[in-house]
Amino acid sequence: MVAKRGVFITLEGGEGAGKSTAASGLAAKLREEGQEVLLTREPGGTKGAEAIRALLLNQDIPLDPLAQTMLHFAARADHVAHSIRPALARGAVVICDRFYDSTMAYQSYGQGVALADVRALIGLIRLKPDITFLLELAENEAKKRILARASGTDRYEEMDAAFFARVQTGFACMAAAEPERFLKIDASPAPGEVVAALRLALREKAGR
Amino acid sequence: MVAKRGVFITLEGGEGAGKSTAASGLAAKLREEGQEVLLTREPGGTKGAEAIRALLLNQDIPLDPLAQTMLHFAARADHVAHSIRPALARGAVVICDRFYDSTMAYQSYGQGVALADVRALIGLIRLKPDITFLLELAENEAKKRILARASGTDRYEEMDAAFFARVQTGFACMAAAEPERFLKIDASPAPGEVVAALRLALREKAGR
Repeated sequence: MVAKRGVFITLEGGEGAGKSTAASGLAAKLREEGQEVLLTREPGGTKGAEAIRALLLNQDIPLDPLAQTMLHFAARADHVAHSIRPALARGAVVICDRFYDSTMAYQSYGQGVALADVRALIGLIRLKPDITFLLELAENEAKKRILARASGTDRYEEMDAAFFARVQTGFACMAAAEPERFLKIDASPAPGEVVAALRLALREKAGR
Repeated sequence: MVAKRGVFITLEGGEGAGKSTAASGLAAKLREEGQEVLLTREPGGTKGAEAIRALLLNQDIPLDPLAQTMLHFAARADHVAHSIRPALARGAVVICDRFYDSTMAYQSYGQGVALADVRALIGLIRLKPDITFLLELAENEAKKRILARASGTDRYEEMDAAFFARVQTGFACMAAAEPERFLKIDASPAPGEVVAALRLALREKAGR
């Protein structure tokens, strides 16, 4: 039997919504079933993209918002060319923690880079997710989870509440504009329940 | 007297054409005359852009051609926002060793990234040089000069002769498409003569 082309799944949402946990939980479930999974994240996923990620997260290097946006897309271009596309060609399920919707939400809605500029960059990537899970969580609950993590802060985690409200608005607008791609997921239950919801949705939407 | 808005000059051409020498010679001449000059180069020119430059020149990090192209534009966006635009607003003469025409020549004509992709990125920069000096030199003469330099090689200097021929074709095509912006300069005379030619052309084209 010839393997069908893979499925490209992205997870989006604000900090503390549990994207990474949900992504690895879904990956583990699919692997148990014998499916090939590429579990990856952005920015990052290849040697070149990880080097760009380090630069983006370094707070000692001031960067213009448009420059930051282009760095995200440079990392993405490498990630897509050297990791995601080859995996999809093999028929794998690719699960990516953040993709271009995050750049739109953070750099455009959050930092004020023109929507049209981010759209132009999206056009150069030439790859659209088949399913985007938007993990939704009330702000006070997300904040509790972030504080519980107690990891170091970075360029984005230090932004203020108004910024995060704009980012949330961004995700809501994108989901409203592309209801056939976005699936909103309630991120408040325990991780196991969230993963079960993703597993079910993936079967219904993509037959995998 | 209110200072007139600055002039944005770029120098383009292949390796070994003497762009850096000509750029610093022209800058010195204008400063002697009492003009404010920002002498800069790409990729680089700001802390962020220099960090991106280091990444681009690191041969241990493989990067997809589109990713390299976007990195050049990320560096450029920061350079324009944090250095070039402020200098132009002060009325300075900005002399930049390489700008977006180099990305078009090397990444598009040289490495095969779609011309339309580079054009889309140029559109996001929103700044066009007032004058672009294209320094022209026969290939064997350029090679002699590169070997005389005997510096370390980098990602671009190790490319082959066919690649450099495509780059030269690229510059020629761009100069033909925008004759009002490009000024071809014979780079074979001694540096002093080349600088004198640039000085004269700047006065004629921009009254500076």
